[in-house]
Amino acid sequence: MSVITVIGSGQMGSSLSIPLLDNGHEVRLVGSPLDGEIIDGLRENNHHKTLMRDLPKTDKLKFYKIEELDHALPGTDLVVCGVSSFGVDWFGKEILPKIPKDIEILSVTKGMINEDDGNLTVYPDYWKREYDNDRDIYAIGGPCTARGLTDKEETFVAFCGVDVEKLKWIKSIFETPYYIINLTTDVVGLEAAVALKNGYALATAIGMGMAEKRDDGIKFINGISTLFQQSTKEMFELLEFMNCDLKNIMYAVGDLYVTVQAGRSRTVGLLLGKGLSIEEVKKELKGETLEAIVIATRTADAVRKLSKKNILDQKDFPLLMHVDELLNKDAKLNVPWKDFEIIDDYKNK
Amino acid sequence: MSVITVIGSGQMGSSLSIPLLDNGHEVRLVGSPLDGEIIDGLRENNHHKTLMRDLPKTDKLKFYKIEELDHALPGTDLVVCGVSSFGVDWFGKEILPKIPKDIEILSVTKGMINEDDGNLTVYPDYWKREYDNDRDIYAIGGPCTARGLTDKEETFVAFCGVDVEKLKWIKSIFETPYYIINLTTDVVGLEAAVALKNGYALATAIGMGMAEKRDDGIKFINGISTLFQQSTKEMFELLEFMNCDLKNIMYAVGDLYVTVQAGRSRTVGLLLGKGLSIEEVKKELKGETLEAIVIATRTADAVRKLSKKNILDQKDFPLLMHVDELLNKDAKLNVPWKDFEIIDDYKNK
Repeated sequence: MSVITVIGSGQMGSSLSIPLLDNGHEVRLVGSPLDGEIIDGLRENNHHKTLMRDLPKTDKLKFYKIEELDHALPGTDLVVCGVSSFGVDWFGKEILPKIPKDIEILSVTKGMINEDDGNLTVYPDYWKREYDNDRDIYAIGGPCTARGLTDKEETFVAFCGVDVEKLKWIKSIFETPYYIINLTTDVVGLEAAVALKNGYALATAIGMGMAEKRDDGIKFINGISTLFQQSTKEMFELLEFMNCDLKNIMYAVGDLYVTVQAGRSRTVGLLLGKGLSIEEVKKELKGETLEAIVIATRTADAVRKLSKKNILDQKDFPLLMHVDELLNKDAKLNVPWKDFEIIDDYKNK
Repeated sequence: MSVITVIGSGQMGSSLSIPLLDNGHEVRLVGSPLDGEIIDGLRENNHHKTLMRDLPKTDKLKFYKIEELDHALPGTDLVVCGVSSFGVDWFGKEILPKIPKDIEILSVTKGMINEDDGNLTVYPDYWKREYDNDRDIYAIGGPCTARGLTDKEETFVAFCGVDVEKLKWIKSIFETPYYIINLTTDVVGLEAAVALKNGYALATAIGMGMAEKRDDGIKFINGISTLFQQSTKEMFELLEFMNCDLKNIMYAVGDLYVTVQAGRSRTVGLLLGKGLSIEEVKKELKGETLEAIVIATRTADAVRKLSKKNILDQKDFPLLMHVDELLNKDAKLNVPWKDFEIIDDYKNK
């Protein structure tokens, strides 16, 4: 049995303790600087405040505040990075230097950095470049609600990293009958797929908001599907541009499906679809981390820069561009339906 | 303005009259031999019985029974084939010979034929081979509920066919602000994508049935997403095998999304997921056309034959194989979750 230290005790990081405990491992759950109250609650009665679930009462699950990290790390076999995308630099600057080089790190943080030249960099590559040139970080992607995993629903994710043998070892630590794990060495492919879907979940949920706003009894299933399909098309072309194995579209789509069912990315889109401005949405969701806004903005920024350089054409991403206008240019909701139309003369290509 | 004769007055064929009438065309809606009652109802008060909508009362919309086809065809500019997959041979044998060679045909029928050698043939190619070697048939694919189109929801489909100029002409007849139409010359790609999704909608809906059956309050969002993701993966690999433009996965996924929201394919999966046997499902849905069963069975048959010839490996299609066992081998529900796991060593390929 191994010792796994999870840094970041938000919903996702905490839920990973469930398969780990089922496999008999020791889990040390370390709250980030933002997680103090969560750790207090867990210490009191094992109840996780935001996950809204009780974690198992067992000696094998231990809770730490960030100040106690030095007590959590000794003897650790694997570190899980469970911070949100807003903690990426904190993790790189404050935590990475404290983790011995021979301990592998598995990140569950989803997102990408938009570079000045228009390129998008996934977090494992960003950490490596900015904070620790010698370290290859492993990562998790795929459709997973933290509550579903905590409830031991069948959950289908992928782990990515450069070394397939190390991936197999990490998988052996986590895999249970309900936690289904693919392995891939296409780090950019998986990480880009599951980062992109956050922005597109927001985009698809706009249709759900438009449906809720209607009072004519129309379900708007065709309309929502139109946005789901266009999201898939735009994500596919971004993965193609990033030179990824195109089969990674499965994770983008699976994760898009789960993300439009529930959660914050959905809520942002839903409220925009009902006609709220982004300022009103932010007011309504005060205090919530809105990763979908960050990734949609960054992706749109990248597409715009690449379009200026004639590497991509922003006309191929009308949904993303409109979302960006809603988020950052105070535009009124006006989905550019007809701009989705393309002519694909495959036979004569 | 043009004259469009729609053969088959089921829900989908009838709903196409809405954009056509909006564009000022004359629509002649001809019931198939199974549609007698629908035509009676439409003639009485323009109410479509199964679509559960009133069609517009206008001189430009005319209703015919199949015996009156000879009155419907003269002056027709375009024929729409709106029969279900069970009418494919009837259309080829009885109707095709009556349609002058210079009149284009646009089919909305979704499905494929499984050949003895394991190959899958889309209907436009099947009609050409079996019934009219000189005729290239055009077709519609993509996410569209007939009710949504009738209600003029934004609806995003694709038209496919060999000649891009003819496609543009057909599009000009149908396109409205709410009917969004891509064009593609990849006939096999589009038609295979939207045929495959019927079987996989059944497969994904199994998770929805499992969710409904639970009484522990668990939503099973992760589980349903697992099936959606695995469906995407298996469809992607089938499109790859069929040598299609892989971007067609957008239509497979968009149409999968719409199909798991409502309709018969969903219901079959839902009931199987609740634990009913296929015989019980068929009893419950008596009289309904169950295209999802046909396409899932045909696709599984093809995969099995191709696996025997080492062209494909049926182990790559565990979800399809289990669905086939449920449908045709009286198997008990036992989703092979762990068989979904793959190792994708992209970097070392």
